[in-house]
Amino acid sequence: MNTENEIQDIEKKTDYDRILEEFGISKIDKVLPRIGKEHLFFRRNVVFAHRDFNKILDRTEQNKNFAIISGRGPSSDLHYGHFILFELIRFIQEKYDCDFFLPLSDDEKYVFRKVDSLNETYKLSLENAVDIFALGFKPNKVHAYISSITPRIQYLALSFSVNQTYNTIKSALGLTGEENAGTVFYSCIQAAHILHPTTDYSLPVVVPVGLDQDVFIRLTRDIARKRKIYSPASLYIRFLKGLTGKPMSSSAPESCVFLNDDAKTIKRKIMDALTGGRTTIKEQRNLGADPDICTIYDWFEKYFVRDDKELSEVRKGCKDGELICGLDCKPRLIEMILNHQEQHNIRKKKVIKNLEKYFDHEIDLSVLD
Amino acid sequence: MNTENEIQDIEKKTDYDRILEEFGISKIDKVLPRIGKEHLFFRRNVVFAHRDFNKILDRTEQNKNFAIISGRGPSSDLHYGHFILFELIRFIQEKYDCDFFLPLSDDEKYVFRKVDSLNETYKLSLENAVDIFALGFKPNKVHAYISSITPRIQYLALSFSVNQTYNTIKSALGLTGEENAGTVFYSCIQAAHILHPTTDYSLPVVVPVGLDQDVFIRLTRDIARKRKIYSPASLYIRFLKGLTGKPMSSSAPESCVFLNDDAKTIKRKIMDALTGGRTTIKEQRNLGADPDICTIYDWFEKYFVRDDKELSEVRKGCKDGELICGLDCKPRLIEMILNHQEQHNIRKKKVIKNLEKYFDHEIDLSVLD
Repeated sequence: MNTENEIQDIEKKTDYDRILEEFGISKIDKVLPRIGKEHLFFRRNVVFAHRDFNKILDRTEQNKNFAIISGRGPSSDLHYGHFILFELIRFIQEKYDCDFFLPLSDDEKYVFRKVDSLNETYKLSLENAVDIFALGFKPNKVHAYISSITPRIQYLALSFSVNQTYNTIKSALGLTGEENAGTVFYSCIQAAHILHPTTDYSLPVVVPVGLDQDVFIRLTRDIARKRKIYSPASLYIRFLKGLTGKPMSSSAPESCVFLNDDAKTIKRKIMDALTGGRTTIKEQRNLGADPDICTIYDWFEKYFVRDDKELSEVRKGCKDGELICGLDCKPRLIEMILNHQEQHNIRKKKVIKNLEKYFDHEIDLSVLD
Repeated sequence: MNTENEIQDIEKKTDYDRILEEFGISKIDKVLPRIGKEHLFFRRNVVFAHRDFNKILDRTEQNKNFAIISGRGPSSDLHYGHFILFELIRFIQEKYDCDFFLPLSDDEKYVFRKVDSLNETYKLSLENAVDIFALGFKPNKVHAYISSITPRIQYLALSFSVNQTYNTIKSALGLTGEENAGTVFYSCIQAAHILHPTTDYSLPVVVPVGLDQDVFIRLTRDIARKRKIYSPASLYIRFLKGLTGKPMSSSAPESCVFLNDDAKTIKRKIMDALTGGRTTIKEQRNLGADPDICTIYDWFEKYFVRDDKELSEVRKGCKDGELICGLDCKPRLIEMILNHQEQHNIRKKKVIKNLEKYFDHEIDLSVLD
C-alpha cells in the first residue's frame, strides 16, 4: 500500500484541485466552521478534504445519528502512522457520539495472500483491536468484528455482488485476470463492511481514508446508488511522513515506528530520521533549519504536539537556529513516543479486560494469554 | 441450461469416446459388475459414464462411507426430468447407506439474476425439498440446507476463492467480463457445496450430473487437488427426452411435465408428444412403429416402466404394430404419471411433517401453510 507515495504523486500535479473536484471531493475548508477546530487534525489540515461530510453534518444538526467505519487488515505491523486514522475516529466518536464499526478484515489478508489461512490472523485481529481501542474508544459505541466469521457480512457481500461487474472491478483496481476469485469478490466484501451500518442500522456512514483508497469508496457508492441507500461520505487524511523521507510503509521498517518497537529501536529510527537541519550545529545556529521538509516536525505537527503555542515555538526555534535536530527535537520526539508507549500499554491492559464488550460476536480471549 | 441440447451435440461427434477419455471419464460398463444391475438406471444405460466411481466402490467394499451431493436451484419448475437425478441419488443412498447433501442454491438463482433478492426463494427451497424427499429419502441421512444462509458454505467458498483465478473461471464458463462479481464467485460457492462433505465430514463425494455440468466438476477437482483433499467422483446421466422432440427444458413447458401440472395439461402434453408412430393407424398396424425415436418410449425406458419384461413387451408391440401411440402408449403414460402424481402428493404430506429433520439448519415451516 503506497498510500503516501500515491498521494504525493497526485499532489505533484498542478491541477490537484481539479482532480479532487472531478471525483466529487471538496476541500475541508468550507465545512470547517461547522466541525470546529478543537482537534489539531482540523486546525492543521491533517483532514484536508471530504465528500458529502456536509450531509453528515446536516444530520448531526438535526440530532440524527450516523456511523463511522474503518477496517483494519490484521497484522503485526501496526505503527504510529495508523494512529492518525484511529485518532480521527476516536475524536469524531467523542464529538458526535456516533457508533464506530471496525471490521477486522482477515479475509483481505487471506485473498491477497498475505497469510495462508483464514484463521491464522485470529490472534492478530484481537491484538490489533486492543491497540486501536486503547486510543480511548467507548466499548458500548463500538462494533468490532472479524470479517470472515461474521455471516452477515459475507451474506451482504453476496447480496452486493450482483451490483458490480467484473469489468468494473477490473478497471477500478487494475486487475489482469490472473488474480484469484477472492480478490474480485473482496470488492463486494469491502462494500459490505462500509454499507453494513446503513443496511442493518439505517445509519449513513462516513469513512476516513487516504486519497489512494478513494477507489473503494467510489465502487461502494456505485453499489449504494443502485440499491437506493445512503452513499458513504468520506474524510481524507494526510498520513505521517516516513522517517526516511520516503513514504511511510510497514515494509520499510526504518520509515515508521511500530507500536511494539523497543526503546533502542525507537531511538535509532528517530535519531536516523531525515530533518530539515544543516550539516553542522554551527551552521544551523547561524542559518536556522527548515521545518517544512523535516519528518520530526511533521510528526510533531500531525500528532505529538497538540498545543498550537508549543508547536509554533518549535517552528520558530527551528527556523531561528535555536533548536538543533539531534540535541533538541529528536530526543524530544523519542521521549514523547516512549511516554506514549508507556501510557498506551497501561490503557491496553484495561481494554483487554473489557475486550468482548467491543465485539459484535463472541471472542476467544484465551489466545491473548 | 441446455442440458440435453449440449449432450446431444457432444453425442453427435464421432469421437465421443475419445472426448470422454480426454476428460478422464470412463464408460459405466467396467464398474457395472461391482454396482449390480438391480436398478433400471444401471441396466438401461441411463447412468452411462463415471469418473473415479471405482474409488468410491473401493471404499464401500472396505466398509468405508462416502457422500452423494447434488444441488437444486430453488424454482417453481421442478419436473419429471429432474426426478432422474434424484431417483438415482435415492437408490445410491439406499444401496450404500451414504449421506445425501442437498444444497438449495438460492445464491445461484440470485447471482444469475433469475430472482431479484436472496430471500425471495425461501419458500420455493422448502417446496422443492419436499418434492425431492417425497421420492423416498431417509431424513437421518440427508443434509439439506439453503446455501446463502449457511455461513459454513459461504466461509468455505471464500476459503476456496484463492485457489481459482478469474481467468480459469472465465475460460471454463465462457465469461465476457460483463457478468457480475457474484457470477465469478459462484464457482467457489459451488465448489463449497461439492467439497463440504469432504472438508467437514472427511467423506469423499460423488456427484451425479449431466455431461454438460462436468466443467463444474473439473473446476472443483482442481481446487481439491490444490487443497490435497479427495477429488469429487462423478456419475453421468442421460436425462429424459423432451416431449416435443427438442431437448427438455423448463422454459419450453410443452417439452416436460411439471410436478404441479393438472390432469388436463398432462393429458394434452402427452397426447401432443412426438412418437415414432406412422401417419395412420392402418399403416402402423401393417408396418409397426419406431420406439427408438419415440419420446413416450424413452420415458417408459428411463423411468416409468421398471420391469424389463414389461418394457420388452412394449418394444415388441410397438415394432410389430400391435400398439398404437394415441390408443395404447400415450394413455398408458398419462395414467402412470397421474398415478405417480397422486402417490407423490400423499408422500409429500408425510415429508412436510418431518421436514425439519432433513435440514441442517432451522427452517420456518409456516411459509408452507
